[in-house]
Amino acid sequence: MAKISQRAEHMPASPIRKLVPLSEAAKRRGVHVYHLNIGQPDIETPKGMLDAYRNHDLKVLEYGHSGGLWNYREGLSRYYRSHGIEVDKEEILVTTAGSEAIIFAMMAVMDVGDEVITPEPFYTNYNGFAAETGVRVVPVTSRPDQGYRLPPSEEIRARITPRTKAILLCNPNNPTGYVYQRAELERVREIVLEHDLFFISDEVYREFVFDGQHCSIFHLDGMDDRAILVDSVSKRYSACGARIGCLATRNRTVLDAVLRFGQARLCPPTMEQLAAQAALDTPAEYFDGALAEYRARRDAVFEVLERLPGVSGLKPQGAFYAIVELPVDSAESFCAWLLSDFDHGGETVMLAPAAGFYATPGLGERAVRIAFVLNVQAVRRAMEILAKALVAYPGKLALSA
Amino acid sequence: MAKISQRAEHMPASPIRKLVPLSEAAKRRGVHVYHLNIGQPDIETPKGMLDAYRNHDLKVLEYGHSGGLWNYREGLSRYYRSHGIEVDKEEILVTTAGSEAIIFAMMAVMDVGDEVITPEPFYTNYNGFAAETGVRVVPVTSRPDQGYRLPPSEEIRARITPRTKAILLCNPNNPTGYVYQRAELERVREIVLEHDLFFISDEVYREFVFDGQHCSIFHLDGMDDRAILVDSVSKRYSACGARIGCLATRNRTVLDAVLRFGQARLCPPTMEQLAAQAALDTPAEYFDGALAEYRARRDAVFEVLERLPGVSGLKPQGAFYAIVELPVDSAESFCAWLLSDFDHGGETVMLAPAAGFYATPGLGERAVRIAFVLNVQAVRRAMEILAKALVAYPGKLALSA
Repeated sequence: MAKISQRAEHMPASPIRKLVPLSEAAKRRGVHVYHLNIGQPDIETPKGMLDAYRNHDLKVLEYGHSGGLWNYREGLSRYYRSHGIEVDKEEILVTTAGSEAIIFAMMAVMDVGDEVITPEPFYTNYNGFAAETGVRVVPVTSRPDQGYRLPPSEEIRARITPRTKAILLCNPNNPTGYVYQRAELERVREIVLEHDLFFISDEVYREFVFDGQHCSIFHLDGMDDRAILVDSVSKRYSACGARIGCLATRNRTVLDAVLRFGQARLCPPTMEQLAAQAALDTPAEYFDGALAEYRARRDAVFEVLERLPGVSGLKPQGAFYAIVELPVDSAESFCAWLLSDFDHGGETVMLAPAAGFYATPGLGERAVRIAFVLNVQAVRRAMEILAKALVAYPGKLALSA
Repeated sequence: MAKISQRAEHMPASPIRKLVPLSEAAKRRGVHVYHLNIGQPDIETPKGMLDAYRNHDLKVLEYGHSGGLWNYREGLSRYYRSHGIEVDKEEILVTTAGSEAIIFAMMAVMDVGDEVITPEPFYTNYNGFAAETGVRVVPVTSRPDQGYRLPPSEEIRARITPRTKAILLCNPNNPTGYVYQRAELERVREIVLEHDLFFISDEVYREFVFDGQHCSIFHLDGMDDRAILVDSVSKRYSACGARIGCLATRNRTVLDAVLRFGQARLCPPTMEQLAAQAALDTPAEYFDGALAEYRARRDAVFEVLERLPGVSGLKPQGAFYAIVELPVDSAESFCAWLLSDFDHGGETVMLAPAAGFYATPGLGERAVRIAFVLNVQAVRRAMEILAKALVAYPGKLALSA
C-alpha cells in the first residue's frame, strides 16, 4: 500500500478540534456541550456585514485580484489609519483568513529547516502551519508566575541560531490573553535588527484589550523592511466563517513573494471580501458592546475559578482566552473524560488541552485553554459544571491542605 | 536587510496573472481588454446559488467543521453518485477551492524532494503549489501532433525514480482541452499499482465534455487506496469567486492526514458552502446550456484561428481552453506587447503565455493558452484583434510560403 508522507504523519491534530468526534458522540447521546474549546464567539456578526450577502447584485461570482479586491484594500488601509497604522492599499494583501496570512509569511521568509522564535504557550496552529511549511517553531517560555510577559531578551537571544529567520508575536495573545507593551515590542525590535530577522506580528485580537492600549508592530520605528502584520476579520466582527484575513508589510520583496503565493491559489473568496468591506463601517458602539461583554464573561469565569481549590490562572488583559491550571493527572484525559464520561444535569463542557499550545514537551499538561465565547449565563454554568467535574474526575490530584 | 526565503525567490509568478499590471495600465489608458487569459467564464452563476447568499438567516457567521459542513458533504456524495462515482460523505473533505485540495493532496503523499509525474502542458499552478510544498513536478510531454493523448506508458515509466510518489492527471485537461479515455486511465492505473504510487485526478471540468464520455478516477477498479480526486465548484457553476472545492478518497490514512491539514486552517468559508450546497440543485438545463455555449465559443474561436497563417492549435474536446501556436518570436513578449503597445479600435486581448504550462524549458515559448470564457461575439472580436496584432507585431516570424 502506498504510504503517506512524513509531514502528513507528523502533522499535529489541532488540540482545539481533535476532541470533536467525542463532542459529536456526546451530542448524539443527548448531552448539551458548552464549547469553550474554540474561539468561536456567540456575539452577533454586525448587521451591515450580514446584509452585504443579502444585498449583493452579482450575476457571476467571479475571481478577484490575487491580492484582494482593490476597494477592500483601500478600506483596510483607512481602517488601519484609524488605528494609527500607516499602510497603503498596495502594502496590504488580502488572504483567505489569518491562517493563510501566517502560512504565506512563514513561506516568504523561511525555507525548510529554518526557525521562528515565539513565546510559548502560543496559538496552537502555528505548529500545524510550521509542519506544513517545514519550519521549526522554537519556543521561549513565557511563565504564568511572570504574568506571561515577554521573556528576558537574553532568553530570546539564547535561542537564535544561523537558521533563525523571524520572531513571531501574537498580540494580544492567544492563548494567554497577555497584551504586550510597547517596551516589550521595542525589545523584540532590538533583537530583530541586531540579528537581521523579520518580525511577524499576529494582531487579530487588536480590538480586544480590557486594560491599557494596544501597540501594533507598525507603531515601531525603523522596521519597514522587517515588519509583517498578519490579521483577520474572524474575531473582530465575530465572523470566523468568513475566512478573510490579510498580510501587510512595507517590504516590497516580501509583498511581491506573497502576491506570487496568492496567484497560485488565484484569490480569496469574493463575496466574503464584499462582506468584510461592509464590516469596515461597523459603528464604534459594536466594539464597545463586544468588549464590555467579553469583560463580563471573563469576570464571570474568574469569579468561579478563583474559588476552586487547586485551580490557578491569570485573568487576561486582552483577547478572550485564559490558560488555567487544573488539579488533574492529565488535562488531555480530563477533557476527553468530560465529553465521554461526564455530565451534570445532561450538560458538559468542552475545553482545549493546553499542551498543544506549547512546543516544549511536558509543559501545559495539566492546563487547559478556556475561551470566553459564550454569554455570561452560559460561561457561569460551564464553570459550575467544571467545578463538579473536578470533584468527580477519577484522575484528580490530591490537594495539599 | 533580512532576506526572503529561497522558496519565495523561486516561487513562479502565475503566467495567467503576471501580466495583470500591464492589463490594469491598459485599462487606465482607456483600452478595453478582452480577458481570454484566465478561466473566468462570463456564464451566469446559477440563480439558486446566488439566492442562497441573499436568503441566509445567519446571525453569527460561524466556523464550520474542518472537513466541511456535513449537509454539504452529504449533498456532494449524492452529486457524485449521480455521476456514477461512489463516495460517502465521510470520504469527502471540503476545501477552500480546488487549489487547496491539490496542495493538501501533494502534502499528504509527498515530502520535500518527492516527485509527481504529470503530462505537460499542465495547469500552471501545479508549479506554484509544488514550489510551496517543495515537491518536484516531473513532466512527461504530451504532444499536439499526437492530439495531447497520454504519452506512451514507457515514457511515463522512464520518469519514475525512488522519489516518485504520485501521478497527477487533469481530466478534462486544462490547458489542452484533451479528455482522457478510460483506456488511458487504465494505463495510469497499471503504472500506479506497479510502482506503489498514488493517482491524483483533477476533475474540475467534469461537466465540460463536448464529445464522448468523461471517465472519473473512481470509475476504475482496485484503486481504493490510491485514488485521490480533487474537485471544485468554480467552473461547474461559473462560481470561481466562491473558492469551494473538495478532496475525495477512500484511503482512510490520507483522509485523516488531510483532515489534520484542514484543522490547522480551521475551515472553508461557511456562507460559500451554503451557496455551493444550493448549487447542487442546479437543473440539468443549466449545464446543457453552458455546454452548448462553450461549444459555440470554441467553434467561433477556431473558425478564425484556422484561417490565420502560421497559427495552429487543436480543437479541444473538453474544458474551455486551447493551446495555440503563434508565429511570433516569443509568446510572452507578444502577450505583453498586446497589452502595452497595441490596440485595435481601442481594444486589445489578454492571453496566457503557454511556457508557464510546461516544466521542460523551451517548450511552449511560441504558444498561448486561450480561454473561451467570453460570449461568441466577444471571442470572435478578440480573435479578430489577435489577427490584426499578429500582422502588426514587430517580433512576428517570417512565414514560409
